[in-house]
Amino acid sequence: MAEITAKMVKDLREQTGAGMMDCKKALSESGGDFEKAIKHLREQGVASAAKKAGRTTSEGIIYSYIHPGDKLGVLVEINCETDFVARTDDFRNFAKDVAMQVAAADPKVVSREEVSAAMIEAEREVYRNQAKLEGKPDKIIEKIVDGKMEKYFSEACLLEQPFVKDNDLTITDVLTQTVAKIGENIKIRRFVRFRLGD
Amino acid sequence: MAEITAKMVKDLREQTGAGMMDCKKALSESGGDFEKAIKHLREQGVASAAKKAGRTTSEGIIYSYIHPGDKLGVLVEINCETDFVARTDDFRNFAKDVAMQVAAADPKVVSREEVSAAMIEAEREVYRNQAKLEGKPDKIIEKIVDGKMEKYFSEACLLEQPFVKDNDLTITDVLTQTVAKIGENIKIRRFVRFRLGD
Repeated sequence: MAEITAKMVKDLREQTGAGMMDCKKALSESGGDFEKAIKHLREQGVASAAKKAGRTTSEGIIYSYIHPGDKLGVLVEINCETDFVARTDDFRNFAKDVAMQVAAADPKVVSREEVSAAMIEAEREVYRNQAKLEGKPDKIIEKIVDGKMEKYFSEACLLEQPFVKDNDLTITDVLTQTVAKIGENIKIRRFVRFRLGD
Repeated sequence: MAEITAKMVKDLREQTGAGMMDCKKALSESGGDFEKAIKHLREQGVASAAKKAGRTTSEGIIYSYIHPGDKLGVLVEINCETDFVARTDDFRNFAKDVAMQVAAADPKVVSREEVSAAMIEAEREVYRNQAKLEGKPDKIIEKIVDGKMEKYFSEACLLEQPFVKDNDLTITDVLTQTVAKIGENIKIRRFVRFRLGD
């Protein structure tokens, strides 16, 4: 069995934010394989994050990002469970990432639950007519519309957008990872984006 | 006739932001009386500000203020005529004052033009019923309601609020003074105020 050194545990802690005992255990179980240990911790983290998702979030911070040049600005409210966590760097870095995401990717709403049924139907109608004009057979039109709606949600909903700093993750992934790291439920409550002259 | 020294001109320029020749002229006309010279420049400034009020404002900045503690944040868009002025300290200080005003005094709208007729009537109805309950005579009730509406506007409309840093001025006064100082029309276009958990 591979030896688990204090340095390995320390490196893993820094990279994942997990506790010392969790890191030691993950490294033991992976036989010292760093990547496997990270994967294991992430899975654990995601599992525990899911458990936390129902908990009340009434603390947090208001965070602003002004893009260089001062022609574009964003204000976000990010909630967590305790003021203690609201003051941590991990939480603030998440707030910063969210604010920069809003600035760069211009989402319309936080989650698809905020898109009204009327808006969804209007959007579907546009895609349906497009498909008909393109001469698609009737029986596959609703499938095509479903596909286009998924694309629409991934552009309009902040939580479903690809993270601008790492396209392999969605904002939901980044949120889940942050929840796993800080051990508290997090909620992106609201945002606003001002672009000069919009 | 009192001597107008270079130092007096310099002091007046710093205090009012007016041009050197205007300051010299104002001091000559006031016989070296500093307060009179300021008053004169202000009147000139206000007159020229009124002339500028119709000009197009498509430049400007987005400015944010986060209150210490990060539980309250404000985002504002302030417009002016040129990007050159948008970069000046005078303009930015005005944007900062506006953002802090919004944080402190919680206005609902920029100006009374944004309050809908329906909202005004609803508000009047409340005051009317209050006055009736207090047994006021019918013939003066509308006068009382008018007075209460003025108070309502001075609380709800940013431009009519007393400036938190100097209660003798309204935000409109501060705007007018800034227009006089920078020589361009200014518009407070929009603002948003997030308070944690609101």
